[in-house]
Amino acid sequence: MKKLSLAICVILITSTVYAQQPVPEATELYVELQKVTPGNGAGAPSDAIILFDGNDLSQWQSQKRGLGASMVDMKDVIPLLRAEADGEDAPWFVENGEIVVNPGTGYIETRQGFGDVQLHIEWLAPPAEGKSGQLYSNSGVFFMGMYEVQVLNSYENPTYNNGQASSVYKQHIPLVNASKPVGEWQTYDIIFMSPKFSDKGTLVSPARVTVFHNGVLVQNNVELLGPTCYIGTPYYVAHEPKLPIALQDHGDPMRFRNIWLREL
Amino acid sequence: MKKLSLAICVILITSTVYAQQPVPEATELYVELQKVTPGNGAGAPSDAIILFDGNDLSQWQSQKRGLGASMVDMKDVIPLLRAEADGEDAPWFVENGEIVVNPGTGYIETRQGFGDVQLHIEWLAPPAEGKSGQLYSNSGVFFMGMYEVQVLNSYENPTYNNGQASSVYKQHIPLVNASKPVGEWQTYDIIFMSPKFSDKGTLVSPARVTVFHNGVLVQNNVELLGPTCYIGTPYYVAHEPKLPIALQDHGDPMRFRNIWLREL
Amino acid sequence: MKKLSLAICVILITSTVYAQQPVPEATELYVELQKVTPGNGAGAPSDAIILFDGNDLSQWQSQKRGLGASMVDMKDVIPLLRAEADGEDAPWFVENGEIVVNPGTGYIETRQGFGDVQLHIEWLAPPAEGKSGQLYSNSGVFFMGMYEVQVLNSYENPTYNNGQASSVYKQHIPLVNASKPVGEWQTYDIIFMSPKFSDKGTLVSPARVTVFHNGVLVQNNVELLGPTCYIGTPYYVAHEPKLPIALQDHGDPMRFRNIWLREL
Amino acid sequence: MKKLSLAICVILITSTVYAQQPVPEATELYVELQKVTPGNGAGAPSDAIILFDGNDLSQWQSQKRGLGASMVDMKDVIPLLRAEADGEDAPWFVENGEIVVNPGTGYIETRQGFGDVQLHIEWLAPPAEGKSGQLYSNSGVFFMGMYEVQVLNSYENPTYNNGQASSVYKQHIPLVNASKPVGEWQTYDIIFMSPKFSDKGTLVSPARVTVFHNGVLVQNNVELLGPTCYIGTPYYVAHEPKLPIALQDHGDPMRFRNIWLREL
Repeated sequence: MKKLSLAICVILITSTVYAQQPVPEATELYVELQKVTPGNGAGAPSDAIILFDGNDLSQWQSQKRGLGASMVDMKDVIPLLRAEADGEDAPWFVENGEIVVNPGTGYIETRQGFGDVQLHIEWLAPPAEGKSGQLYSNSGVFFMGMYEVQVLNSYENPTYNNGQASSVYKQHIPLVNASKPVGEWQTYDIIFMSPKFSDKGTLVSPARVTVFHNGVLVQNNVELLGPTCYIGTPYYVAHEPKLPIALQDHGDPMRFRNIWLREL
Repeated sequence: MKKLSLAICVILITSTVYAQQPVPEATELYVELQKVTPGNGAGAPSDAIILFDGNDLSQWQSQKRGLGASMVDMKDVIPLLRAEADGEDAPWFVENGEIVVNPGTGYIETRQGFGDVQLHIEWLAPPAEGKSGQLYSNSGVFFMGMYEVQVLNSYENPTYNNGQASSVYKQHIPLVNASKPVGEWQTYDIIFMSPKFSDKGTLVSPARVTVFHNGVLVQNNVELLGPTCYIGTPYYVAHEPKLPIALQDHGDPMRFRNIWLREL
Repeated sequence: MKKLSLAICVILITSTVYAQQPVPEATELYVELQKVTPGNGAGAPSDAIILFDGNDLSQWQSQKRGLGASMVDMKDVIPLLRAEADGEDAPWFVENGEIVVNPGTGYIETRQGFGDVQLHIEWLAPPAEGKSGQLYSNSGVFFMGMYEVQVLNSYENPTYNNGQASSVYKQHIPLVNASKPVGEWQTYDIIFMSPKFSDKGTLVSPARVTVFHNGVLVQNNVELLGPTCYIGTPYYVAHEPKLPIALQDHGDPMRFRNIWLREL
Repeated sequence: MKKLSLAICVILITSTVYAQQPVPEATELYVELQKVTPGNGAGAPSDAIILFDGNDLSQWQSQKRGLGASMVDMKDVIPLLRAEADGEDAPWFVENGEIVVNPGTGYIETRQGFGDVQLHIEWLAPPAEGKSGQLYSNSGVFFMGMYEVQVLNSYENPTYNNGQASSVYKQHIPLVNASKPVGEWQTYDIIFMSPKFSDKGTLVSPARVTVFHNGVLVQNNVELLGPTCYIGTPYYVAHEPKLPIALQDHGDPMRFRNIWLREL
């Protein structure tokens, strides 16, 4: 290796005299680093893309692309997933600086597509008398429109554990249940690493997710098996490197606020 | 596989009639999950071990075990690293509910040993006229006494980038510089996964670290090469699965507060 | 960090004069490395444990520990899994230097327990008229008695793809189908990394598997979801760090030869 | 999630009657899998790209792009690395169906660029009286022109261990030394996963390498820190997803044969 002409590294040579002793300087690395001004508390850092700051749904659109409940075959669905900025306006509400799901109007999704991100989102499950399990205040954050971190009231509301709040739906149980009661704001801080595909369409690396629920680590860099499936066994199909993030309309008037992400 | 007698899985059979269609229930998993009450803001969750809550240094001891600057050979050092509860009291100060480094008295370390953890710690770099680089408000969090996440004033204080705040010292540059100015409190939220060794002493999996600096992801599940080295090239030597976390005395009156961790 | 007394690294200091220039020697590392004499072709290296070399089944025992088909609840099964050297002799055959499954006598397992290993094993699926799918020459390699790499005739013998040869049974489809026809010897070269659990019993890192089937990469460091399940959804339950490797009796007279492993 | 319209999964519904019991079929997955005919022994599988089969160097070209020993700054080098098919012919020899390095003529590289691959290569270090260390029969396999797995006579020829045969040069020591003596053919079977970069140029996932040396696992999915450096500390700079594989001319008449890879 001694004659390598491709030495791509940091070398600080200020003299032509070479020495024989290792020195601390030999492992000190100088590169250019981006400066980011952190936010206050859960506020957005300076390099974040603000998806909702209390004002309007301009960053979101209706997820209307003919995706009905009968469409469960991947060959049909994957081609429909794409980042596009020309969708119809998101038909949900903004109240008191909060997004409110408009039940029955369908999912909403970001107008912009995203791949690897750090996402912050806050959500509130409203109380609902007589409801339980998956029917008690349910929504979800769908990365790339298909990889879901579940949103659900899971405070003293038993359901299958790979379907409770902060689960990777039907794939990964959270490490613990860090839920707050209905009516209280909760936070997700998520690292989502998108799957990578070769140009042949084979999977090169699976999607990975880390989740902090209300500040508690609940998913620790888990691998996803493929897109989220309600029925059946997931597997990967190659798709675009950036796709919109969607929020689920599951029929409940869930609330969201303070949504931002940083592209990694 | 059909006759496998070791099927360790979740099967809910309420009838002897088997069906031929996949159903949503087939992928619903019921296990027992621990409940954790999250803290308020950066407050400690209910399952946390509080390392400092503003009162005293009872969880800490002096790191006095004959580790002097001349001891740089791993064969000498590793056997000295161990969790022990009988050390001398930590010789640092508590002021206004904050830990203050007592320069010149040496590192302090937890009385208890830890392996894989989620750690929250807050720190403040005091202003210091005329100082710069590594000499301007320096300390460090040493997991297992040897894997350091750097603590340093890195706000408009250039140094080598694998030695700035939130670097894995001399191993991994942070993704961005999310530093606040001197005199302001800063936070680290860290996932530290300890290295695993076989009973032959070989490395089975390296240490891994994820760091959020002031809420900004700066280390994304990076692999460590071995213990932190000021000079030379790190490599792993097998050690105990749990060892104390140490805080560095680098000669500066750094401040710490609100320190807690959760064992993973 | 400058005053760190725990510098565990390689430093070659032959002089007290420190230099200021990085030199190639600064990143040259000297440690003691074990020497291994490689085998010829697929032969065992000098540090391998030979599980079968053509002579006898002395390294194997009958997997008789009351594990019947009705025992599908993990709480019952996990405590029964353990390395023990006092089992009954393995009731399978040795013919022409090959192991032959004795259908109906049950699984066999190694007398010794293993965790992280590199395993080499060769197998042959005999022709069997009129059989198809999972019933056509089926067996399996069960790491730790519960994590299966499937053994099956998958040459022009369609079945579900997460159940074909070299699949991680019902968890990971192979990348390609590299099967040879029945009657020909086939090889698996497998890296199995065992799951790691905390002393609280939580999962710290999942099992991981890499498989070469007849020299072709078919599983690339995939994460396992838990023990292999014929029915239902797998999840992890803490167990001993070393457990026997089992070979499955699925009713077919499969053949095995040249079995060795290296502990990692 | 119950109303999810994006269920991208495998569902086999042959009837409209849904059942309540999990069945084995619920976790059986049918997809289309490529068939690969494995080679004999270390022979190339049917989907391999043959880089050298004993005949000629038509797959290789001279690595002549002005990369001299003085070019050590990454800003200069990275833009020069690219897959191009119009290079000058490789100035090395073919003798007895083997490639022989032509010392002094420089590296050679594949005409085609590659990213994630499974590579098989065989090499022979000739005896050379009076030589030792890095000067005794040295070459290297450079993935993407910059990530080196070292080729060196390391049989009773001590050198720094992160520079011996099958090391990731100056980054990862092999787990054991599985070298054969000079004059004997040796094999590398390597899984190389290329680094992935965001469109901002940040590192999304580092390069990873697994190496079997003469059939013995010596690198187990290790992360690379950046391109190989003879002097100094490596770090990543974004580059093309596919770049040529290079073989090093280190001044010794090393021999290579039977070179093939599979794109992953």
